[in-house]
Amino acid sequence: MGYTLAQKIIKQHLVSGDMTPGTEIGLKIDQTLTQDATGTMAYLQFEALGISRVKTEKSVAYIDHNTLQTGFENADDHRYIQTVAKKHGITFSRPGNGICHQLHLERFGKPGKTLIGSDSHTPTAGGIGMLAMGAGGLDVAVAMGGGAYYIPMPKMVKVRLNGRLRSWVSAKDIILEVLRLLTVKGGVGKIIEYGGEGISGLSVPQRATICNMGAELGASTSIFPSDDVTLAFLKAQNREADWVEILPDGDAKYDETIEINLCELEPLAAKPHMPDNVDTVKNIGPIKVDQVCIGSCTNSSLLDLMRVATILRGNKVHPNVSLSIAPGSKQVFTMIARNGALADLIAAGARILECACGPCIGMGQSPNSSGVSLRTFNRNFEGRSGTADAKVYLVSPETAAASAITGVLTDPRGLGSEPDIRLPETFLINDNMFELPADEETAKKLDVVRGPNIKPFPLNVALPESIEAKCLLKVGDNITTDHIMPAGSKILPYRSNIPKISTFCFVRCDPDFPERAQKEGKGIIVGGANYGQGSSREHAALAPLYLGVKAVVAKSFARIHYANLVNNGILPLIFQNPDDYDKIHFEDELALPYVHKEVEAGAQTVTLLNKTTGDAILTRCDISDRQRDMLLAGGLINYTKQQNA
Amino acid sequence: MGYTLAQKIIKQHLVSGDMTPGTEIGLKIDQTLTQDATGTMAYLQFEALGISRVKTEKSVAYIDHNTLQTGFENADDHRYIQTVAKKHGITFSRPGNGICHQLHLERFGKPGKTLIGSDSHTPTAGGIGMLAMGAGGLDVAVAMGGGAYYIPMPKMVKVRLNGRLRSWVSAKDIILEVLRLLTVKGGVGKIIEYGGEGISGLSVPQRATICNMGAELGASTSIFPSDDVTLAFLKAQNREADWVEILPDGDAKYDETIEINLCELEPLAAKPHMPDNVDTVKNIGPIKVDQVCIGSCTNSSLLDLMRVATILRGNKVHPNVSLSIAPGSKQVFTMIARNGALADLIAAGARILECACGPCIGMGQSPNSSGVSLRTFNRNFEGRSGTADAKVYLVSPETAAASAITGVLTDPRGLGSEPDIRLPETFLINDNMFELPADEETAKKLDVVRGPNIKPFPLNVALPESIEAKCLLKVGDNITTDHIMPAGSKILPYRSNIPKISTFCFVRCDPDFPERAQKEGKGIIVGGANYGQGSSREHAALAPLYLGVKAVVAKSFARIHYANLVNNGILPLIFQNPDDYDKIHFEDELALPYVHKEVEAGAQTVTLLNKTTGDAILTRCDISDRQRDMLLAGGLINYTKQQNA
Repeated sequence: MGYTLAQKIIKQHLVSGDMTPGTEIGLKIDQTLTQDATGTMAYLQFEALGISRVKTEKSVAYIDHNTLQTGFENADDHRYIQTVAKKHGITFSRPGNGICHQLHLERFGKPGKTLIGSDSHTPTAGGIGMLAMGAGGLDVAVAMGGGAYYIPMPKMVKVRLNGRLRSWVSAKDIILEVLRLLTVKGGVGKIIEYGGEGISGLSVPQRATICNMGAELGASTSIFPSDDVTLAFLKAQNREADWVEILPDGDAKYDETIEINLCELEPLAAKPHMPDNVDTVKNIGPIKVDQVCIGSCTNSSLLDLMRVATILRGNKVHPNVSLSIAPGSKQVFTMIARNGALADLIAAGARILECACGPCIGMGQSPNSSGVSLRTFNRNFEGRSGTADAKVYLVSPETAAASAITGVLTDPRGLGSEPDIRLPETFLINDNMFELPADEETAKKLDVVRGPNIKPFPLNVALPESIEAKCLLKVGDNITTDHIMPAGSKILPYRSNIPKISTFCFVRCDPDFPERAQKEGKGIIVGGANYGQGSSREHAALAPLYLGVKAVVAKSFARIHYANLVNNGILPLIFQNPDDYDKIHFEDELALPYVHKEVEAGAQTVTLLNKTTGDAILTRCDISDRQRDMLLAGGLINYTKQQNA
Repeated sequence: MGYTLAQKIIKQHLVSGDMTPGTEIGLKIDQTLTQDATGTMAYLQFEALGISRVKTEKSVAYIDHNTLQTGFENADDHRYIQTVAKKHGITFSRPGNGICHQLHLERFGKPGKTLIGSDSHTPTAGGIGMLAMGAGGLDVAVAMGGGAYYIPMPKMVKVRLNGRLRSWVSAKDIILEVLRLLTVKGGVGKIIEYGGEGISGLSVPQRATICNMGAELGASTSIFPSDDVTLAFLKAQNREADWVEILPDGDAKYDETIEINLCELEPLAAKPHMPDNVDTVKNIGPIKVDQVCIGSCTNSSLLDLMRVATILRGNKVHPNVSLSIAPGSKQVFTMIARNGALADLIAAGARILECACGPCIGMGQSPNSSGVSLRTFNRNFEGRSGTADAKVYLVSPETAAASAITGVLTDPRGLGSEPDIRLPETFLINDNMFELPADEETAKKLDVVRGPNIKPFPLNVALPESIEAKCLLKVGDNITTDHIMPAGSKILPYRSNIPKISTFCFVRCDPDFPERAQKEGKGIIVGGANYGQGSSREHAALAPLYLGVKAVVAKSFARIHYANLVNNGILPLIFQNPDDYDKIHFEDELALPYVHKEVEAGAQTVTLLNKTTGDAILTRCDISDRQRDMLLAGGLINYTKQQNA
């Protein structure tokens, strides 16, 4: 029986498990990446593991999130990451160099290799046939130390692209169509493989856009074959040697297949407040637009910005619209500065922002009150823009540019003939903003610089025989990591300072939670379905840990957050009967009287007593043997130390 | 008897007074400008005056301060200013268009005209022979309504520049030398006129740099003659018609004359934490540098950035240095994007920031803890960078660029032969980011958009017969407007929301002050010498007004803040005997039993009783008749309304 593309890479990297969907597999990781908002914690954890030098083929520490620097914290964190990277064998990408995923695609990603990154959009590198996944910072730390990365073996979904895109329809519209078809939960536990004759017409940046936003499907990752198109891209990056061909076997079996006729697609938009709330631009109609933002790891490639520049050339941004553009990388930025496209963008009235994530993570450019913002980004969750009542639409760069001129949502097909923008045969290569690590001898003498924003992270203790604690908070379905640990320009700077950032934990649900939790000293959280969806941020586990949370009982969990809880020794318990959710109320006295014994036995059943009502509630903990040992030890760091000892 | 340059312009614009130094004169104002951090309040005040259309020749509303947009507030304020400008006859400069002073110099300033601006660096336009002064927002509002601007007639200082600058020495070094000679108090009550054969070798951008930073001398303003150099600049801006020649008379009398031999100057730096703490770069030596910031209204012209680009071309920013560059205007930005200089900057590793004030006002790019930051800006006050313990040095763009490469403070004279950068014969002109006001008929129908961040400003009441209140706060000498009303990225967004911003009033001196003042309902502040120095921000009067402050008793006051207090009906009282400062203590019960009668009589003496100690303390209020009427009415707005009624 043949293998799918992803199965081939998994098979080559399998260190444990047998590729049965749903069962845990362990993968050897070739490359890792971090960004700075999750990276500080990942490196603190790496240091805690006590390994002197990374064991991966390539590990890169990018700075792209906290670049506004509205206080000392960001620059301190950058300095910490720069010095810890230099000491431990990690390549450092300096602030101003660009967005991790764009840079990694350009300079380091390799077809057929595995990559995990402490950012949920790490699958971007699937655009060049890499198996690239988002993970918690601790998983990345362990992978840097040579440890395997563990996931439930995903099911395989084939998305067959037929035909060619019509004029003014773009890769963004393809992934919006996939989101429309599959929804934000449609990819859970699955890898999405793209194929069909249509892919030959899609360049690597287009493929990367599609894989990037596959994260919004909840998918484990997305991937394109490595073919001639991949070769051409790597050649243009002077990385021909990194190319290998990887295609699925002809008789590969997929659990699901979806067909999309590219020639039937038209410009789409995801309406507020969910990436799968998709309709055609035409149907939504010419709504008035206050802001347009172009950039992010989804759509900030040379190809994207050249098309935008061509649309804007000789035009003027509508007086009622603020248009911001943030190039994805120094390579992109330099090239459009050299070829005149940047001058065209500025001349039209675009606000050029630093080459970084910027407004996509709420780091500046918050829209006006109840403003309509069109963004080429990947998420339009309520409030993520920094303006609570803003209405964010996700669109292609072409739709964004057309609308910036007219001041209303505009179908770019009205712009006349499409510009013929092709990727260059050679990209302008200048890696001077990557700093290579010191050699092993020099590294030994190097100091790591820790500013006052770098605080030790909380470590759990071994699982006790029993737990008694109050229900500290009860929340509903679809709680995101943004609810648990909000981000944005005012909170992100504290990602390396758990005591401080914990004061924002759950405040969107209950402003008193942090203070109450700290007073109480311990507690249990009760949640609904899909608890912890959204980003890979480990802080959604670390802040609760710091505040004394011992367990989360929910109807179901999102994958990465579930792993993050286990990694930090917080019990993720699933109601055997979802209706039991109603049997626990805020501030009820709860107990897990036999928890240690039950987890030791495999956690098929964990008994939860509601001492206030007298109810006995059955829960379970879906864990592998490895995870069981971690929970008993009080998290992955304690477990790894035990193993090493 | 002949006139000085400034006297000529004053004479042409005099509407009251007789030009005797120290006595109040009223000036007709031809042009006004506002930036957004002070502008929202100025326009709210303009609206309160009830005048439908500005009566100036040109009024421009710039957006350059609050451009990070880390919440809905900034975009709301931009929208308010945009719509209020359109309705009332004011040109609107959109965010992204650049820094007010740079833009005003390029496109609107005219030799021989008067300009007031709600920003302390408004004197920049002195570089083209304009009489340009910083003022409180309310003064700007009144001037927009056709009212005069009142100041004490300044003394005249001539700075004679002889010879020519040597290679690698720049205009920034000239003004640093003037600051070294005169100190930050040396310009108080004076206008600084530049002359001598040396000025013929200084281009308009260089002259503007010198006038700009004249604000740091405490001077009323600084000014250069309007000569052939001015003509060449205006011609290159396609504004030849705006030129008139203005030179001082040969027999003009100056109160003071200073000679500077340009050929003796060398690269200078203002050391932490004061702009007059000047030494040579050579003397300071090769200290390690963490950050370099290039830009601001002082040094972000085409000339500046072209020189920086020439230095950086083919080089790399030192790995330990973060170099940020913010172009001063869209014109500058477009031109360096067209001619390759911008690509050189990016290629070397510069972080390109939005065309705005940015880090100069603590709006991003805060350095690392105790970091050394070299900045081409105008102020290096402690903490202004957003990092409390950062060490900021003010330097020329050439010194900044050289140091960015080496990683240590570097004298640019070591760089070899100086690049020969000249101003272009024609600037690239594209005014599409200026929005012209509506015609009068259309304007009547226009609505002004007020987001939830736009709150009504506090209005005082007529001066009562007597005042009884506690000493709510006692502070020492040299309290700046940054102490009274801090700025920075976390507070500036609330400049149009006095209730909110008042919660930060005086918190650097006493974190409990806002709460205590509000509880108490009224109070008196006691200060030392030079109370209220620093910026023109009216919020340093408006926030205390909102919090119930009735009077400030101090040893002496800074000019603009004194006027701002009077404008808002807060009594500025000066101790007749400075030693009486010691006779008042925190929370003493104070009274001004005869205040109304005393102010009505001219305020030569205002009796202050310390009811707690029984002391009777004599103070005075240095006011003109006009200011007397204002104080009695409860501020300028009430007074103007009374006059109109």
